[in-house]
Amino acid sequence: MQTVTLIPGDGIGPEISVAVMKIFEAAKAPIQWEERNVTAIKGPGGKWMIPPDAKESMDKNKIGLKGPLKTPIAAGHPSMNLLLRKTFDLYANVRPCVSIEGYKTPYTDVNLVTIRENTEGEYSGIEHVIVDGVVQSIKLITEQASQRIAEYAFEYARNNQRASVTAVHKANIMRMSDGLFLRKCREAAEKHRDVKFTEMYLDTVCLNMVQDPTQFDVLVMPNLYGDILSDLCAGLIGGLGVTPSGNIGANGVAIFESVHGTAPDIAGKDMANPTALLLSAVMMLRHMGLHGHAKKIEAACFDTIRDEKVRTQDLGGNSKCSEFTDAICQRVRDMD
Amino acid sequence: MQTVTLIPGDGIGPEISVAVMKIFEAAKAPIQWEERNVTAIKGPGGKWMIPPDAKESMDKNKIGLKGPLKTPIAAGHPSMNLLLRKTFDLYANVRPCVSIEGYKTPYTDVNLVTIRENTEGEYSGIEHVIVDGVVQSIKLITEQASQRIAEYAFEYARNNQRASVTAVHKANIMRMSDGLFLRKCREAAEKHRDVKFTEMYLDTVCLNMVQDPTQFDVLVMPNLYGDILSDLCAGLIGGLGVTPSGNIGANGVAIFESVHGTAPDIAGKDMANPTALLLSAVMMLRHMGLHGHAKKIEAACFDTIRDEKVRTQDLGGNSKCSEFTDAICQRVRDMD
Ligand SMILES: CC(C)[C@H](C(=O)O)[C@@H](O)C(=O)O
Ligand SMILES: CC(C)[C@H](C(=O)O)[C@@H](O)C(=O)O
Repeated sequence: MQTVTLIPGDGIGPEISVAVMKIFEAAKAPIQWEERNVTAIKGPGGKWMIPPDAKESMDKNKIGLKGPLKTPIAAGHPSMNLLLRKTFDLYANVRPCVSIEGYKTPYTDVNLVTIRENTEGEYSGIEHVIVDGVVQSIKLITEQASQRIAEYAFEYARNNQRASVTAVHKANIMRMSDGLFLRKCREAAEKHRDVKFTEMYLDTVCLNMVQDPTQFDVLVMPNLYGDILSDLCAGLIGGLGVTPSGNIGANGVAIFESVHGTAPDIAGKDMANPTALLLSAVMMLRHMGLHGHAKKIEAACFDTIRDEKVRTQDLGGNSKCSEFTDAICQRVRDMD
Repeated sequence: MQTVTLIPGDGIGPEISVAVMKIFEAAKAPIQWEERNVTAIKGPGGKWMIPPDAKESMDKNKIGLKGPLKTPIAAGHPSMNLLLRKTFDLYANVRPCVSIEGYKTPYTDVNLVTIRENTEGEYSGIEHVIVDGVVQSIKLITEQASQRIAEYAFEYARNNQRASVTAVHKANIMRMSDGLFLRKCREAAEKHRDVKFTEMYLDTVCLNMVQDPTQFDVLVMPNLYGDILSDLCAGLIGGLGVTPSGNIGANGVAIFESVHGTAPDIAGKDMANPTALLLSAVMMLRHMGLHGHAKKIEAACFDTIRDEKVRTQDLGGNSKCSEFTDAICQRVRDMD
């Protein structure tokens, strides 16, 4: 039994968390949950921080699963997502985008992974007013962070039987910053000759992506480009409701999360789709080396969707969240 | 008769320029061409500049049509496209993306326009090494340029019977720079109450775009976001080979261009597809107020593609560039 910190989140977060726990139980996944709430609080000195008991839980367990968090509206209140990335130095955002059989989108056979540098770049937060009406934002690229994410991408490719890594950049325009990022990718490529390496301009990637996403495999890129491409790719396979996400940090910390919103309009109505959180939990199992359980749960989820009989409304069906969950549980049990 | 500066460009540039001239002649468009070459030269003080006779021609005629230019490989040699934007202060890049009937892509009924700020932002060219291994690139946003592009977008919408403008931004992350850009869009919206205004995060736009592009109309955004989105949208309707583009500058200057490459592998073989340059020329006619000629040529081009009998190879046919051109000429003449 391994303990995982569970952050159910807001809105539909609690119900989809319950769904995941039920399915894990049915699959006899050797996971014990430690629930924590992460509403930001003001620490000493007025700095925003996540509650100490959540921090301690994560520090101890290393692995977390997180539902959606509502975006704070109070001025000065930080985005919880950014705060978590910072607190745990979650440097890599990993999003596998794989077409779901039976769930129709304009694309089939999408099977790629975006790996986003998650700590610097355009998200440095450094901005100035130079003179009235003239503003600068600073994109910060470091050798260290670029090397870390590049290495991660190649290791991910190797560990997940993926054949190629594409570095996405605009080094034709940002010659020094994207140039540094690209150089580090090339160096990592030199060290991982078993994985094919290509480089492509971000604009070209976007154009090719919507024309034929099957040409891509693993893509690695600076923060903002990853923000864009990961959402674009999620769109190709059906949106954020079916796309898993993992954030890999230093010292073995990792948080897996659904990246859709809190959907307050349907919260508490047993209508939510737990797929994104469930697939994120499956990613988590793989990350923990629990491949058998991961495979079983994933297959049960995909089979249920493919079967069409029991689907939540956003997937074109008319089943409740609990019915969809039960259907997956049943399939998991039938596999034994 | 109005004189237009024609920059045929490299690779397939000359042959597709000939195609456009032929079709314009068939349509009796009141345009006279002044051909100029724009290979960059080193001016006094070692600064790269476009040849004086090309500059003079553009200064005089104000309107230009340009084929593809090869990317210079010599170190320090500037991108010709960037140099042209700078020389003529071409502040708005406008790309209408409209589905072409009969040319199948995963999307139908796309009908949107991206308007990209073309002079500043991430393209400022200001970069520093802070200490070894730490690099900064500066994104520069000014009130003046933001206001100019925002105003342009709303005026474009009004003049082209478009119902809405969406400002695309990441002001949740770059609060000051994208914040300023967004503020200027809001101010322009206040002045143009007849056009609907919405704001959307860039990542959300990308996600929604690949799921349902028909929800978008006019989109306005800073430089890099425009670089990305304009290519993404071109991909939705069939790629750069069928997408027109216009660059609007200060003092009435405007250059219309195909944004695909020079395709050196097929250059001189009568295999190129002149559609992107032709549709750019059609945009030019509209810009000049020659709506009748624009409509006729555009219809002839679309009819020829829809008809399927005479198409270039990249459009799935097996006709030569000259045959495709003749077919369009024939249709233009038949309309008289
Ligand atoms: C919520 C927001 C700060 C965030 C981002 O821009 O990174 C979001 O879009 C994401 O991708 O997690
Ligand atoms: C050629 C290059 C400098 C350019 C850019 O990045 O702006 C291109 O992608 C474009 O969109 O015109």
